[in-house]
Amino acid sequence: MNNPFFNNNGPFKLRDILNDLSLENDQNNQDQSIIDIKDLQNSKSNEITFFHSKKYKTAANNTKASYCITTKNLQNELPKSCIPIIVDNVLVSTSMVTAKFYPDSIYDDYDNTVEEINKTKFNDKVEFGRNVLLGKNVSIGFNCKIGHNTIIEKNVIIENNCSIGSNIIIRNTFIRNNVRILDNCVIGKHGFGFFPNDNKNLRYPHMGIVLIEDDCEIGCGSTIDRGSMSNTTIGKNTYLDNQIHIAHNVRIGENSIIAGQVGIAGSSIIGNNVKIGGQAGISGHLKIGNNVEIAGGSGVIKDIPDNSKVMGYPAKNIRQFLKENR
Amino acid sequence: MNNPFFNNNGPFKLRDILNDLSLENDQNNQDQSIIDIKDLQNSKSNEITFFHSKKYKTAANNTKASYCITTKNLQNELPKSCIPIIVDNVLVSTSMVTAKFYPDSIYDDYDNTVEEINKTKFNDKVEFGRNVLLGKNVSIGFNCKIGHNTIIEKNVIIENNCSIGSNIIIRNTFIRNNVRILDNCVIGKHGFGFFPNDNKNLRYPHMGIVLIEDDCEIGCGSTIDRGSMSNTTIGKNTYLDNQIHIAHNVRIGENSIIAGQVGIAGSSIIGNNVKIGGQAGISGHLKIGNNVEIAGGSGVIKDIPDNSKVMGYPAKNIRQFLKENR
Amino acid sequence: MNNPFFNNNGPFKLRDILNDLSLENDQNNQDQSIIDIKDLQNSKSNEITFFHSKKYKTAANNTKASYCITTKNLQNELPKSCIPIIVDNVLVSTSMVTAKFYPDSIYDDYDNTVEEINKTKFNDKVEFGRNVLLGKNVSIGFNCKIGHNTIIEKNVIIENNCSIGSNIIIRNTFIRNNVRILDNCVIGKHGFGFFPNDNKNLRYPHMGIVLIEDDCEIGCGSTIDRGSMSNTTIGKNTYLDNQIHIAHNVRIGENSIIAGQVGIAGSSIIGNNVKIGGQAGISGHLKIGNNVEIAGGSGVIKDIPDNSKVMGYPAKNIRQFLKENR
Repeated sequence: MNNPFFNNNGPFKLRDILNDLSLENDQNNQDQSIIDIKDLQNSKSNEITFFHSKKYKTAANNTKASYCITTKNLQNELPKSCIPIIVDNVLVSTSMVTAKFYPDSIYDDYDNTVEEINKTKFNDKVEFGRNVLLGKNVSIGFNCKIGHNTIIEKNVIIENNCSIGSNIIIRNTFIRNNVRILDNCVIGKHGFGFFPNDNKNLRYPHMGIVLIEDDCEIGCGSTIDRGSMSNTTIGKNTYLDNQIHIAHNVRIGENSIIAGQVGIAGSSIIGNNVKIGGQAGISGHLKIGNNVEIAGGSGVIKDIPDNSKVMGYPAKNIRQFLKENR
Repeated sequence: MNNPFFNNNGPFKLRDILNDLSLENDQNNQDQSIIDIKDLQNSKSNEITFFHSKKYKTAANNTKASYCITTKNLQNELPKSCIPIIVDNVLVSTSMVTAKFYPDSIYDDYDNTVEEINKTKFNDKVEFGRNVLLGKNVSIGFNCKIGHNTIIEKNVIIENNCSIGSNIIIRNTFIRNNVRILDNCVIGKHGFGFFPNDNKNLRYPHMGIVLIEDDCEIGCGSTIDRGSMSNTTIGKNTYLDNQIHIAHNVRIGENSIIAGQVGIAGSSIIGNNVKIGGQAGISGHLKIGNNVEIAGGSGVIKDIPDNSKVMGYPAKNIRQFLKENR
Repeated sequence: MNNPFFNNNGPFKLRDILNDLSLENDQNNQDQSIIDIKDLQNSKSNEITFFHSKKYKTAANNTKASYCITTKNLQNELPKSCIPIIVDNVLVSTSMVTAKFYPDSIYDDYDNTVEEINKTKFNDKVEFGRNVLLGKNVSIGFNCKIGHNTIIEKNVIIENNCSIGSNIIIRNTFIRNNVRILDNCVIGKHGFGFFPNDNKNLRYPHMGIVLIEDDCEIGCGSTIDRGSMSNTTIGKNTYLDNQIHIAHNVRIGENSIIAGQVGIAGSSIIGNNVKIGGQAGISGHLKIGNNVEIAGGSGVIKDIPDNSKVMGYPAKNIRQFLKENR
């Protein structure tokens, strides 16, 4: 599920894209229309992609994109059908091109498209409290409740039988059935992703969404950031306690249980049936297997295989940790 | 103080209770009325209780309940006056029976009984900001202030001289005198208690309340969950800093000081004059004595005796910790 | 920048100040007017200051204050132009005198001076959402946005091109240009500062402000407390992620990056270009140098020199930590 919510401002001429990157226009077919920007795997003909690390070599070898932002060193990994656009910093250039296609995905100002819910078509369909606001492009299913002062900003789909509490802000989010979101959460905000720059950091676009599957519960005061290129996902029947922070691009599996004040850094993948104790932290870009138990307070800094129980900082086998720390 | 807030939907016939538990109705007196469900110590004649662990053997020996949900192995600990109801999983069955008596204690949808405070009897008695909402069964004493956008949901008692900030949500809570609750707190929500189940977790009832004694201060963005069978209590003149999470059934003594981002897991008991540094975490079901000092960032995973100073994860004697970690 | 926001209720006669401290009035010139109370360095003639620790000996030697609250042991460090006022507990007495001059700086009840923004002079100047409230003594520059349900309480200056999100509460804060504050933050509340007292804690005044310099971003659900005597400062182009807690008197430099759920205790000073990973905690009264990197989950309990990379609890050199914790 890609980009149901952010408007693609393209197509753009190749010429304009090269101009924005301050590149010399020595490419042929500068009048070519570029339709979209996507990652290596998902991009197609007449689209542009990016390739910044050997880690993604296989995907680069097989990309269907017509153009690819990359470096001199990496360009030879691309197929002949894909014309390299050579830059110094692939991610910064990609960010600039993405911002051109999806300008709304960079900053999260408050949503000025909202209306009071009782002036919308949901007045008779949804049970709601005082001062509930709905933005553009919102869809709400049957038998849903929305509490006081809650703002469903633009680009939200809520399916059936959901209970949304009070003082909540949701945007760019797809909530499936029987989900309960408790008070004071902020869901769907852009992630903490930017290129540091001494004069002024450069925020990069977050075009992903938050996807919350059936039967989940999200505790009070939690924050779940939307993804940048991919989505942030909470799997079916997973429960989150209060004051949890889920960063962008994180994917959590089904039937997992996450206790209070846990933080999961960007792009980590958590399996099914995982239990995470209170205040544990998980670094970014990690893979936590299925049936893993992480003790409260742990700091996880490497991948954890299926069926493991870990504890400590850095988290290690729980028996070893307890033996070493009698 | 038990159940001042949740309506008892009983009495129910023993027959109906057995039916709900899918038990064969081979008991005598199936027409007997069961008035209430309580724990082993507090239940009386014509009430039902539950007994799931040898830890509670003494209480079981002396229970005054007429019926007790328990297992085959434990049933012989009950007095003759108490008829055992044998089940596979005591806690699941207890949860189902409790839900029958107290259906409102399971899910925390937004409170649709609220009115704007200026349309209530408190209009002249309380000093209040904009958009303040009050639910049913709310009582507020003299000289109280309630800030903007705050929602006092149903079942709240606030005594005298309290200052409640803005954007706060309170329910099922008893706040005594001279208490200050700072902005953005959520107090009295159900705890993170449920029976995990691969298809769909089973939430158990939370019929307890939050009790905040005289002269407390609760910092911004904190969450205090109400108890399940017992209460969550903050003792007299105890101060909590910002972004603290207090789970269900926790009891904190008097004159304690708890710094920012601390988390205390369910059912732990904290003594008087305890100091807890920022970001420390305390596991569930522990007993922390009086005059204990817990250094910031510590992870406490076992009981701490009176007058101790601890540090580290797992927390140990602070001198030992500092010696080992020079 | 000192006290732009809190009204000085003085001057007071020396006699009244001594009375409040229950001191015998054996001083000469009891009719002398005392204009203000400040720290040792900033106070001038006809003002009162305080001196409670040998650490501040040099400042005491050179103070320009006419009076100084101090102890018997420390009084000889003061110049002849400064008359000592001898007390048992300097900080408690200072707190009482400060409260006399600045009574509004002690408790943070909700702001009852607010008006709806569309009834203020900012109606045409600012782009704003629903239910936005502004207190007294608020100034907002050009091209600013303020989201739904946000309360800008009294004593706030916002310069140009700022984006303030929804459900935010700000008071006693100076926000410079191009700053973005994300949803659900509470900024400018008093710090967690008080004198513990078994019957009833004694809150001390917080007359400082929060100063957020140009180009900062503050993530959702963060809390930044204002200073007591000095200010809490976030330097230019520093980015904070979600659910961060910055305590009173903390100063963070420029171009720093602080990930989710970090907590920084009172009066610590963080340099420029510092990177702090998620959930790290920094104890109070520390000095973290420039270009320091603190790994996620670390607990910092001592000063960190420039250009260091640290990890662990207690935080130490990152290479050493990783070697010891393979």
